[in-house]
Amino acid sequence: MGTREILGRWGVKDFRVIDRRALEEITLGASILATGGGGDPEIGLLWAVNVVEQGKEILMIDPEAMPDDALATIAGCLGAALVLTEKPPNGQELFWCYDRLRRYMGRPIEAVVPPEAGGVNTPVPMAVAGATGVPVIDADGMGRAFPELQMTSFYVHGVSPAPTAAADEKGNVTICDAADALLAERIIRNAAMAYGGISWIAGYPMTGRQLKDTAVLHSISMAWDLGRRVFAARKRHSDPVAEVLELAGGYHAFEGKIVDIDREFGAEKTKGFSLGRITMEGIDAFKGRTARIDFQNEWLTVEVDGEIRCTPPDLICILDPATGEPIRTDIVRYGYRGAVLLLPAHERMRTPKGIATFGPRYFGYDRDYIPVEQLMEAARG
Amino acid sequence: MGTREILGRWGVKDFRVIDRRALEEITLGASILATGGGGDPEIGLLWAVNVVEQGKEILMIDPEAMPDDALATIAGCLGAALVLTEKPPNGQELFWCYDRLRRYMGRPIEAVVPPEAGGVNTPVPMAVAGATGVPVIDADGMGRAFPELQMTSFYVHGVSPAPTAAADEKGNVTICDAADALLAERIIRNAAMAYGGISWIAGYPMTGRQLKDTAVLHSISMAWDLGRRVFAARKRHSDPVAEVLELAGGYHAFEGKIVDIDREFGAEKTKGFSLGRITMEGIDAFKGRTARIDFQNEWLTVEVDGEIRCTPPDLICILDPATGEPIRTDIVRYGYRGAVLLLPAHERMRTPKGIATFGPRYFGYDRDYIPVEQLMEAARG
Repeated sequence: MGTREILGRWGVKDFRVIDRRALEEITLGASILATGGGGDPEIGLLWAVNVVEQGKEILMIDPEAMPDDALATIAGCLGAALVLTEKPPNGQELFWCYDRLRRYMGRPIEAVVPPEAGGVNTPVPMAVAGATGVPVIDADGMGRAFPELQMTSFYVHGVSPAPTAAADEKGNVTICDAADALLAERIIRNAAMAYGGISWIAGYPMTGRQLKDTAVLHSISMAWDLGRRVFAARKRHSDPVAEVLELAGGYHAFEGKIVDIDREFGAEKTKGFSLGRITMEGIDAFKGRTARIDFQNEWLTVEVDGEIRCTPPDLICILDPATGEPIRTDIVRYGYRGAVLLLPAHERMRTPKGIATFGPRYFGYDRDYIPVEQLMEAARG
Repeated sequence: MGTREILGRWGVKDFRVIDRRALEEITLGASILATGGGGDPEIGLLWAVNVVEQGKEILMIDPEAMPDDALATIAGCLGAALVLTEKPPNGQELFWCYDRLRRYMGRPIEAVVPPEAGGVNTPVPMAVAGATGVPVIDADGMGRAFPELQMTSFYVHGVSPAPTAAADEKGNVTICDAADALLAERIIRNAAMAYGGISWIAGYPMTGRQLKDTAVLHSISMAWDLGRRVFAARKRHSDPVAEVLELAGGYHAFEGKIVDIDREFGAEKTKGFSLGRITMEGIDAFKGRTARIDFQNEWLTVEVDGEIRCTPPDLICILDPATGEPIRTDIVRYGYRGAVLLLPAHERMRTPKGIATFGPRYFGYDRDYIPVEQLMEAARG
């Protein structure tokens, strides 16, 4: 069985062929949306390009084209992005996950949906789709990146991550079939730490109907458009930040140089996350002002001169103003110059259960979620 | 399919019917061999008696009667025995494990072998065998109790615990299919802690051939004989400790009163184990002498007046001298009177890999394993 046979069986004639250039554009766009997390895009891109160069087709379809009763799962990795860079995958991990998950569920997996927008977890599920001969769906579970298993629009709208399979590069596999999503996160995270910091996972089995009702739809197209426009701006030597804002909406909330990074270390303390805070000193229009940005794998909150400007799940994208390249929490360095863009989260991420699942209080902040639009309105007023 | 059909198919005519009285005797004997661990026998016995009273048959066969290619697994629990007493099972946990494990492996489980000799992990697998309609094998994986998943004669002689399924009372199930047994222990223990301290597990799938080559054989018969003789001694008001020594061999190394218990608390510190040390002051023939006994779920080491008398995997059984009832680490109290019996571990537990897996150095002691026979010989000399 291959992707075209599946699409033929479903009567789907409309699909997009994801070639090498498309992969580069999607991966860049997804890493911009990843809000500082999502891992090293070189790793994700290399994996996906290899699949295409082996002659396998990656075909992307609209969520509406997926039959209501077909089965999709996510594929990707969970853990500290920094570890991922030090411990690259062997490429078999997700096939092991798929093999065990299929066997456990007793039915075939007919489509892959990326769990998040990120430099690894967007191209890698596309690679898995191509390699296993199933379509990839133009959607994801966040419209951004987030650190924990349950932090998805799927979960917020009623889809359980169970069963989720987690593999390491030695072939060790754990399947967590816990109806309690927070318990599943704890068990899968513990497995990732036992594996050395990173787990490759496949899970969140869902029907086409569930996917359409719960996912952040068309987010891969959005990432693709973003990446294409940033590449074009680089070629024209025009402003990539303006391109992102024009396409994605949102706010150019700060621009400055990173003057301090306060990073926490030690697996016991960080539980496998990249944790810390950066301080930026403003330049140009922001001269004389100071921004403080907290992170847990992703950028979480922005304060400018002590005033809050953005809280999760709204997006904080810090881009190199010259290239539009995103600055990631795992590799951020003193002296980097960055434009801080704030984008409203997708509406499916902003429900009361969404705010309870990944709003500021979940991350330990003693403040209510206020949409970035209101925070920026107040800042102007 | 039921147990008698399986035995018919195997051509086995020789089996022992385990009735309520047999369960009481086996459970008592197994708790004596459990060296202070193995959990509350009331919980294990109640579970098994319920199965028999529902009209289900528990049939035990000799390991030699099991076909070489038939499949057995262990069933039992893993975690802190004290938690088990506070959080009794609902009785479905192991059926959930069996159901998922069968589905994952894609083949039926045709026999159950107890993982250890213990008040819970001997009668409970017998109950599971009766309830699921398969025979229980007269053998176990330790001939005693031990705290960790890999601490079995199965593992020491080449059988992997993978895949092992672990369930809680709410139906959350995790399957760990890690070839690395220490990694599997870490993941399953983390799952037990995430579940609230206790995990019900089924795993160590093995063929009849593997079972015969790796298990501690006929240990359930041994527990049965022990239990029968201790009950008989109680009835006759004769010395139960003498009965145990006569049947099991070994040494009456100390007798005294518990004058101090130093117990460690907190899941972070104890990792879900019952950890600590007791001090006993000698009475009768041992008057004026002091014993110190360390424990981690089970009694681990005995020192008398500062001299080592027993290290793992040799057995330390502390019995009430009047009743022969074992004193457990999870419920030991100041003022209890106990006879300390030391029994040599089974030869399959004393290989170099066995000593590396559960000898004194594995538990953090800076001493080599010396068989209890030699230590007691030196003490006499």
